[in-house]
Amino acid sequence: MRDVCAVAVGITKYGKHDLSARELMTAASDQAIETAGIDATEIDGAFFGNAFGMAEKQGHLGPLIMTALGIPETPATVMETACASAGTAFHHAYRDVAGGFSDVVLAGGVERVSMLDTLTATTYFSYGSDYTFEGGNGCSFPGLYATMARGYFDKYGATEEDLANVAVKNHKNAVHNPIAHLQKEIDVDTVLKSMKVADPLKLYDACPFSDGAAAILLTTEEKAKQITDTPIYIEGSARSGSVASLQDRDDLTTIPGTVSAGQQAMKQAGVTVDDIDFWEVHDCFTIAEVVASEDLGLFERGTGAKNATDGQTAIDGKRPINPSGGLKAKGHPVGATGAGQIVEVVEQLWGEAGKRQVDGAEVGLTHNVGATGGTVACHVLRRRN
Amino acid sequence: MRDVCAVAVGITKYGKHDLSARELMTAASDQAIETAGIDATEIDGAFFGNAFGMAEKQGHLGPLIMTALGIPETPATVMETACASAGTAFHHAYRDVAGGFSDVVLAGGVERVSMLDTLTATTYFSYGSDYTFEGGNGCSFPGLYATMARGYFDKYGATEEDLANVAVKNHKNAVHNPIAHLQKEIDVDTVLKSMKVADPLKLYDACPFSDGAAAILLTTEEKAKQITDTPIYIEGSARSGSVASLQDRDDLTTIPGTVSAGQQAMKQAGVTVDDIDFWEVHDCFTIAEVVASEDLGLFERGTGAKNATDGQTAIDGKRPINPSGGLKAKGHPVGATGAGQIVEVVEQLWGEAGKRQVDGAEVGLTHNVGATGGTVACHVLRRRN
Repeated sequence: MRDVCAVAVGITKYGKHDLSARELMTAASDQAIETAGIDATEIDGAFFGNAFGMAEKQGHLGPLIMTALGIPETPATVMETACASAGTAFHHAYRDVAGGFSDVVLAGGVERVSMLDTLTATTYFSYGSDYTFEGGNGCSFPGLYATMARGYFDKYGATEEDLANVAVKNHKNAVHNPIAHLQKEIDVDTVLKSMKVADPLKLYDACPFSDGAAAILLTTEEKAKQITDTPIYIEGSARSGSVASLQDRDDLTTIPGTVSAGQQAMKQAGVTVDDIDFWEVHDCFTIAEVVASEDLGLFERGTGAKNATDGQTAIDGKRPINPSGGLKAKGHPVGATGAGQIVEVVEQLWGEAGKRQVDGAEVGLTHNVGATGGTVACHVLRRRN
Repeated sequence: MRDVCAVAVGITKYGKHDLSARELMTAASDQAIETAGIDATEIDGAFFGNAFGMAEKQGHLGPLIMTALGIPETPATVMETACASAGTAFHHAYRDVAGGFSDVVLAGGVERVSMLDTLTATTYFSYGSDYTFEGGNGCSFPGLYATMARGYFDKYGATEEDLANVAVKNHKNAVHNPIAHLQKEIDVDTVLKSMKVADPLKLYDACPFSDGAAAILLTTEEKAKQITDTPIYIEGSARSGSVASLQDRDDLTTIPGTVSAGQQAMKQAGVTVDDIDFWEVHDCFTIAEVVASEDLGLFERGTGAKNATDGQTAIDGKRPINPSGGLKAKGHPVGATGAGQIVEVVEQLWGEAGKRQVDGAEVGLTHNVGATGGTVACHVLRRRN
């Protein structure tokens, strides 16, 4: 295997856009290409996450974006694993370079859903669940994650206040992220008094519906050193999964695919939890961040919520989680989310994260989840000194 | 790169099914797994083509299929490049094994669209075009391919009768294909008198809307020899593309991505056209087969239609095309089509194609197109003696 490095990134503002998915993805890609200072013709292939192209009446995004970039014959593949689509695309992009098939690849993801009303968007999102048994029976994602929260509360005695603290922390971080969808601080009371979405989850326990796109240029170590003085090495890239329907799981307080993908990625990178400086995890709902923090080994079982409340996951805490603001406040443009996590890690490892900078960050881990864990993609990135 | 072999295949009947995409893909996968005589737990990853999951209200098919196969933690990715989705999935599956990331992978594709009425299906299909400029302005795929046909007629003086002969030949082949959607012979007159779909194309110039799934197990040469005495080697695997919108092309009588992907795949395999015994090409409309036969170098420019009429592309002709019956008569379950082409080639190279067998076939090429060529995937497979 060849070493693979991220050399440039691009990202749009997360939020509501009037631009199409094609335009958003092209904008993020152009930004990465310009940052790298390469010509688009040097790109050997592209890997994009996108989950709801049909909502925009536009599938087959790959060649549209390649045509817009002026390289129509360059192969591009859209990959779909629900909310983990971009983590999946990045994984296959990594392998394409590591395996020696391509020297320079463009990885990223895009989504545009803000033109949908909330009910329609929630319904479309539920197509990512096991629709026959879950979404089609009225159990959309708020209900599924509420079920996990209820299971967690029952087993470990955590509270709604604990979850609220996750939201408060992520909103606080997002204030310093210029591309974040929700750049405003909130307090625990605001969360607790917000509209019930699916008991015990409330509006402020949930991420927003966002439009957005993110792009990363990956290349070989040799080529990377020609492009930048600070290539970021992809040292672990792992995929795993879980039984598709939540109802068929043995335990509601863990996602098996997270445990497996996290361990594989850390093993590939030759690191343990203590070697990692921060985590970008998939907090589509506050409970998801808590469960991930335990599944990824940051905290003992049943203590994730308390550790969040105690400030351990803040930017200056022992285990910083989601300095970007996470899906919760940075936003969740579904097919882009996994790529946006990588962009955040690269910017942090470059020391370019401004007021949300994790001090001295050298190693970061991303965790991107499809549905309730049917798909999980984890990556470990490092700045080598 | 490691040598990669196909060791087992599975395919459902093409046509109308009451089964869901999940069930169809699981059935085809089970068939391949049983044929190989391996345990599903030996599979390291899965790559599926699927284009219209949203039509069935089911995205995120990967973990559903993995769960049904009893291997929920095994990573699975759905890939979408419109009608080339399965060719794309097979390409990435090949690279995953060739690059040393996986030892055994499942590649395939599935589509279920027959529950849609014709207008809705045609509309959904048009989302695979450049919808802003093509489908959204009323130019669905019959119109786009009719435009190519008109351009071809104008440039080379071919006729509707020439195209009809392509349909007649593919229907004749499909009679001997037990999984084909349209197992009936037709004559030129039937084609010419059938309903105009988009002048000069008529109903019998077009492929049907089919449901179906196809699966292939790929593995290393070493493992393949443990599984079968006749591994089929993937000697070329290439992707390319073309400017997305037909209106932006310089020439309506060629698909640049086909020329490029075909040449790359043949170069990788170290073969020329004369070394290839038969072709499975993407004949979504009769004109598409004619254009492909020239783009892939089988015939001189402008002679593809005449050669079809002269019988050169029949099973016993000099350049057999679509012994399976092609998309035209075997059927076109969009996300499965590229995988179904591979299944046909494997069966032909095993000498197991019955009355549609190409005599002494040792090398076959597949050609899978997304939209009007925005994506093209070509593969060269060989039975080594």
